[in-house]
Amino acid sequence: MHHPLDILLADEINTARDVILIQYPGKVIGFREIYLHEPPKAELKEFLALEHSGRLSPTSPRPARLARCLFDVFGSKNVPEIHEALVDVVLRKTVKDEKVGSKQHANLILPELDTLVEVCQASPMFRKVLSEINLPEGFEVVIEPWPYGSPDDTDDNRRYFQGLCFARDTRLRNPDSNFYAFPLPFIPVMDALKREIVRIDRPATGGKGDSLTGQTHRPDIISHCNSSEYVPELLTEGTRKDLKPLNILQPEGPSFRVTNQSLVEWQKWRFRVAFNPREGATIHDVWYDGRSVLFRLGMSEMTVPYADARPPYHRKQAFDFGDGGAGKCANNLGLGCDCLGVIKYFNGYLAERDGTAKKAPNVICLHEQDNGIGWKHTNWRTGRAVVTRSRELVVQFVITLANYEYIFAYKFDQAGGITVETRATGIVSVINIDPGKSSDYGNVVSSGALAQNHQHIFCVRIDPAIDGHENTVLIEESHPVKLNRVTNPQGNFYEVRKTPVERSSFFDANPSLNRVVRMVNTHKINPISGSPIGYKFTPLATQLLLADPDSTQARRAQFAQHHVWVTKYRDGELYAGGRYTLQSRKEVDGVSDAVKRGDPVKDDDVVVWSVFGITHNPRVEDWPVMPVEVFQLMIRPADFFCKNPAIDVPSNKNLTSELVSSDCCKQSHL
Amino acid sequence: MHHPLDILLADEINTARDVILIQYPGKVIGFREIYLHEPPKAELKEFLALEHSGRLSPTSPRPARLARCLFDVFGSKNVPEIHEALVDVVLRKTVKDEKVGSKQHANLILPELDTLVEVCQASPMFRKVLSEINLPEGFEVVIEPWPYGSPDDTDDNRRYFQGLCFARDTRLRNPDSNFYAFPLPFIPVMDALKREIVRIDRPATGGKGDSLTGQTHRPDIISHCNSSEYVPELLTEGTRKDLKPLNILQPEGPSFRVTNQSLVEWQKWRFRVAFNPREGATIHDVWYDGRSVLFRLGMSEMTVPYADARPPYHRKQAFDFGDGGAGKCANNLGLGCDCLGVIKYFNGYLAERDGTAKKAPNVICLHEQDNGIGWKHTNWRTGRAVVTRSRELVVQFVITLANYEYIFAYKFDQAGGITVETRATGIVSVINIDPGKSSDYGNVVSSGALAQNHQHIFCVRIDPAIDGHENTVLIEESHPVKLNRVTNPQGNFYEVRKTPVERSSFFDANPSLNRVVRMVNTHKINPISGSPIGYKFTPLATQLLLADPDSTQARRAQFAQHHVWVTKYRDGELYAGGRYTLQSRKEVDGVSDAVKRGDPVKDDDVVVWSVFGITHNPRVEDWPVMPVEVFQLMIRPADFFCKNPAIDVPSNKNLTSELVSSDCCKQSHL
Repeated sequence: MHHPLDILLADEINTARDVILIQYPGKVIGFREIYLHEPPKAELKEFLALEHSGRLSPTSPRPARLARCLFDVFGSKNVPEIHEALVDVVLRKTVKDEKVGSKQHANLILPELDTLVEVCQASPMFRKVLSEINLPEGFEVVIEPWPYGSPDDTDDNRRYFQGLCFARDTRLRNPDSNFYAFPLPFIPVMDALKREIVRIDRPATGGKGDSLTGQTHRPDIISHCNSSEYVPELLTEGTRKDLKPLNILQPEGPSFRVTNQSLVEWQKWRFRVAFNPREGATIHDVWYDGRSVLFRLGMSEMTVPYADARPPYHRKQAFDFGDGGAGKCANNLGLGCDCLGVIKYFNGYLAERDGTAKKAPNVICLHEQDNGIGWKHTNWRTGRAVVTRSRELVVQFVITLANYEYIFAYKFDQAGGITVETRATGIVSVINIDPGKSSDYGNVVSSGALAQNHQHIFCVRIDPAIDGHENTVLIEESHPVKLNRVTNPQGNFYEVRKTPVERSSFFDANPSLNRVVRMVNTHKINPISGSPIGYKFTPLATQLLLADPDSTQARRAQFAQHHVWVTKYRDGELYAGGRYTLQSRKEVDGVSDAVKRGDPVKDDDVVVWSVFGITHNPRVEDWPVMPVEVFQLMIRPADFFCKNPAIDVPSNKNLTSELVSSDCCKQSHL
Repeated sequence: MHHPLDILLADEINTARDVILIQYPGKVIGFREIYLHEPPKAELKEFLALEHSGRLSPTSPRPARLARCLFDVFGSKNVPEIHEALVDVVLRKTVKDEKVGSKQHANLILPELDTLVEVCQASPMFRKVLSEINLPEGFEVVIEPWPYGSPDDTDDNRRYFQGLCFARDTRLRNPDSNFYAFPLPFIPVMDALKREIVRIDRPATGGKGDSLTGQTHRPDIISHCNSSEYVPELLTEGTRKDLKPLNILQPEGPSFRVTNQSLVEWQKWRFRVAFNPREGATIHDVWYDGRSVLFRLGMSEMTVPYADARPPYHRKQAFDFGDGGAGKCANNLGLGCDCLGVIKYFNGYLAERDGTAKKAPNVICLHEQDNGIGWKHTNWRTGRAVVTRSRELVVQFVITLANYEYIFAYKFDQAGGITVETRATGIVSVINIDPGKSSDYGNVVSSGALAQNHQHIFCVRIDPAIDGHENTVLIEESHPVKLNRVTNPQGNFYEVRKTPVERSSFFDANPSLNRVVRMVNTHKINPISGSPIGYKFTPLATQLLLADPDSTQARRAQFAQHHVWVTKYRDGELYAGGRYTLQSRKEVDGVSDAVKRGDPVKDDDVVVWSVFGITHNPRVEDWPVMPVEVFQLMIRPADFFCKNPAIDVPSNKNLTSELVSSDCCKQSHL
C-alpha cells in the first residue's frame, strides 16, 4: 500500500496507460505526462491526521490513487485533441476525462524538440538561408529548439516551435565542443502539427545605433567568433593543478532515515519528498518535533524574459516549469559531482510518448552538509566558548533547459529553518553581433556573441500548516516614529506593526519598512511570548518584471509583478503562471487570477507565494559557463518554539580537523 | 625584514612601549593600544609596485615601520591626558605625539570593564538598591559592563560606564549558567576616573500601557524568571544523540600557502591578512592571477541601537568596533569548533595596560570549504554533464561583546568573487519585565525576560584597486521603458544606465531599479566587451537606521543612514562612524563628514563603503543563544576577466562520496 503522497511507480504509470488506451480503441494516442494526481486536501488531511495520530490501519479510508494523464488523441482532423484524464490506478478506471481548451497549448515534450531539429534539417527553406552564409570548413549547423514564446497578434493559434541556430566545429572531433560560441542569425519557426518550417526569422545582428530590423551581417558570419570551450579536454590551458582534494566523510553514515519510499526523518524533521514532471522535487507534510509546519512546498514557476527590443527576440521568454517542466528536464545526478558525503538518490518516473513508464534515475539527491557555525557564545568571564556547527539536510535537483541550468535545493536546518535555494548556472543565451559592435541589449561575452539582458523570476509556493490548517498571514513592518515627549522622548523608538491579511491579495517587498511575512496560527499562542505561533520570511527585495505592462511578456507573467501573493487554498491551484503557459498570450488561472477572487484568507487555509529573481545583465565572466548566482529564501520559525530548537545540538569538537603542517607556511625571503 | 603590512610582533610592541616610557620620565603611563600604523598609501603603493614587479631588493626604499600608540598620561590633574603617538620601532623614536581632544573619549579597554564590576561591588549605593529586592537563596548579582552610549544633554563629558545587572544561580555550581535569564532593573553608572558609582538608573519593568518611567516591579524581582541554559551539561534534556559525525578531510593538505607571516596564496588569489585591535582581521593588496583587485578590505564599523523608548535605554547603543574594538574582543578559536578541515590560525598581538605585548592566539582562522556546485552544464544532446564544485577560502574571526557574538568572514572563490559575510549569534540583550506583561519594545523570550527590539548596522570598507589605483564608481540601473514604436515595439526592452559618480556622495540600495555599484578602471578596457574592467556589488537592501534623525542615536551614527558611501581616499580614514565613537554625541570625522568634502572621485583613488544590517525584533527562538543570522555582501568581477575565471576548475568526481547503505532506507510498515 502506497502512501497517498508517494509518486506513481512504473507499474502504476503503465496501468494508467492501459486504462486510457482501452478507452480509445482504434485511436492513436500520444502521451505527454502521466503522474500522481495529488489527492484533494480534504481527503489527504483526514489521512494524515490518522497517520500522525498513530491510528492508521489497513482498513482506514484512503484517498483514491489517481494518475493525471495528459495525452493527444489523433483522429481524422489535422489537430489532435488534447485530453487531461484522471485514472484510478487501483480500480483501473477513468474517473475524469476532459478536453483541454483549444486556445491553450499542452506543455511541450522532448520529442517535439527533436522534431524541430529533424524538420529543419529536411527543410529546403532552411537550406536556402544557410546557403547565403559562408560557414568555415568543418562547421555544421546546430539547432537549439525553444518554445515559441507568445505569438504575435497576427499569428494564429497553431502550435509553433522556434530554433536558435549555431555552428559547431566538427574538426575538434568532440560532440561537446561549445557551439554557442558561433551563433547564426536565423530563427526557423515550425508548425509542430504540420511538421514544417513556416518561416525563418532573420534577426538583426547590429549594434548601438543600428536599426531594429536591418540586416547588417556579412556572409562570413562567424569568422569573427572564437571558440569558447568548457569541457576539460578542450581547454587550451588545461585545468588548474593546485586544487587538493576536500573529502566529506561520514564514517557512521548519514543522520537521516528514508523509509517507505518517500518519508524522510532527520534531526526532528519529518517530511515526504515527491517528484513530478512539472515541478521537479516537491516537499510535503513537513513536521518538526511532532508539530506540523508546512503542508506543501514547491517551486511553482519561473519566467525568463529577454530584453532585446529587436523582433523576434520578444518571443524569447521561457516559463521553465509551465512550458516544459522541471521534472522532465531534471538531471540524472552523479555521485561525487552534484553533492558530497553520503548521498541518497531518489528516482522519478516519467512517461514515454507511448505511455510506458520510464525511470528517471537519481533526479533528486538527499544529503547532509555543514554550514559553518550554527550558534556560539563565549562567556568572557570564564573564557568558556560553546559553539555548535550548523548541519543542514539538502533535497536538491538540477534542471537543464537548452543552454541553461538551475539548481534547486530545499535545505532544512537544526534551528527549525527551511531555506529554498536557487542557483542559476549554465550557458547564457547568445546571439550573433557584427564585429566590433556593442549593444544596448546585452554584453559581448565572446567575439561575435552578444549575451542578451534578461531576467529570471522565480515563484516559490508555500502552503503552510502552522500547527494546523487554519492559518493567518500577518504583514509585519518596523516603522520609524518621530521624536516626541510622550511615546518617544529620546527618538530611539521604532514601532513594530502587524497587520493581518483579510482577503487574498498581493504585496511587494519593502526593505525600508523591514516588511516581513508571518504565517501564524492565531489559535495557538506561544506560552512564552503570548504571540501566535508562526513561521516568517522576509520577501527578497529583487527587481520585478521590467517589461511594459502592456507587453505580452508582462501579460503572460502577472505573477512576476509582485513579490508576495496570498491566496485561499484550492485543490490543484499550484501554478503561479497558470497551468498552460506554452505559447500563452496572457496568464490564465495563475496566481493573479486566484487573488482576484477576493477570498477571505484570515484564519483560513491560506497559501503564500514568494516571487524573487535576478535582472541578469551578463558579465564576460558568465561565459562560457556562468558561475552560480545564488538566491536564498529563508523561512524561519517565529515564536513557533519555546526556545532555539538547535540549543540541544552537541558542541563536540570535530576530532578530524587538523592544523596545517608547517611546510605549507614556511618563511621565505622577501 | 617585515613586509610593511605585517602586523607588529611582540618585540616591536615592546619597543614602542619602551620609547614612549622613556619619553615620559616620572609619569605614570597607561597604554590602551599599540599596533601597526599602516604606511601612507603613497609609500605603500611604491613598495608594492616594486614587490609585484619582482624588483624589490634589500636596499629598496621601505615605509617607516610605525607603531600607533594610544595611552593615558597620568599627572597631577584628576583627568589623564590621552595621547596618540607614532613610534618608529626600527629607529626607536617618536615621530608624532598628539593629545586627543578632551571632548573625545578614547575607546575602552577591558580593564575598565573590570573596574566597573569592582566599583559596583564596593558601592554602598549599589548595595542599597539591591537591598530593596528579594533575590532567592543562592542567587548572586552579576554586573555586565556596557559603554555608556550617548550622554544626555545634562550630562557633563566625564568618562562613564554603565552596568546591566543580572542574577546567577550559584546552586548549580556552574560558572557558565546563564545569568541573562534573570535580569535586574538597575543600571549603575560609574565615573571611570573617580572610580565611583554616580547614579543608579532604575528602568521601568512594565508592559503595554504602563508609563515610560513608573516602577512597577515587585520585590521578588526574579521569582517569575526561569532558568534558560545553553551549556550542554546544564540542559535538562541533554543534547540530541542522533547527529552522526561529518568529517572534512584534506589528505593532501590545504590548497593554500601562507608565507612570510601574512601572505596568502590560493587558487590564483594572493593577498595579505593583518589584524588590529579595532577592526579584527583586515585584507590587503588583493590580486587575482597577477592583477590587482583591492587595496584594502575591512569591517569598518557597526552600530547596535536599541529601540526601547524608556529611559535610559536610549543609551543602549554600541559601536562594536569604535567603542571597544573587534580585535580586542576577538575569540581565540578552537580546532574542530569554529571551522573544519585543515586550518591555519593567525595570532594577533595586543598591548597590556603597561604596554607589554600580549599574544592573542588563534584570532583568525584560514581554511577551505566546499560551497556546492560552482558551475554546471549538461549538453542534452550527448548527456554529458560537466560540473565543478565551488571551493572557497575563508578568513574568519569571531568577536564576543558581552552577551553577543559576531562571526565575520572574508570568502574568496575560484570565480574571482569575494564575499564578506557576517553572522550574528550569541545571547540577545534582555531586561526584566513584570509577570504576564507584553511590550511594544520587544518580545518576551523567557518568563520575565524582555528581548528589546534593536538593529545591527554594519559598514564594510572597500578600497578598490582595479588594475591600478585610479578607479571610478559607476551606478548601474535597469530601467523599464514604455512600449513605443521606435525603441521598444514589443515592450520587452529595458534600459541599462550607467552613471559615473563625479564627487564624493552617498546612495541607497534600490532593488526596483536593480541598482548595482560598479568599481571600474576606465583606462583598462575589457577586450571582449569593450567596457572598462571592474568589480561590482549589489548593495544589500536592508533597513537603515530607524532612530529619529534628531535623536542622539542617529546623530552619532550618520554612516548607518545610507547604504553606499563613496569617498576619496585619505590616509587613516578607515572608520565609518569616526575614530572616537565611545560616548560620542555625534559622528565626528566619519564617512558622512568625508563625503561632505565634495572631493572629485571620478578616475581617482576612491573608497566605497557598503552599509547593511538587520532590524532584529527578537523571536523566542533567539533564546537562550540565537541561531546565526547570515548576511553576505557579494563583490564580483564584472568584465574584469575575459571569461569565467573558474572555467579551469577540474570537474573530477569526488571519489570518497558514498551511496547510503540500504539499512538507513528500508521499507517499514505504514
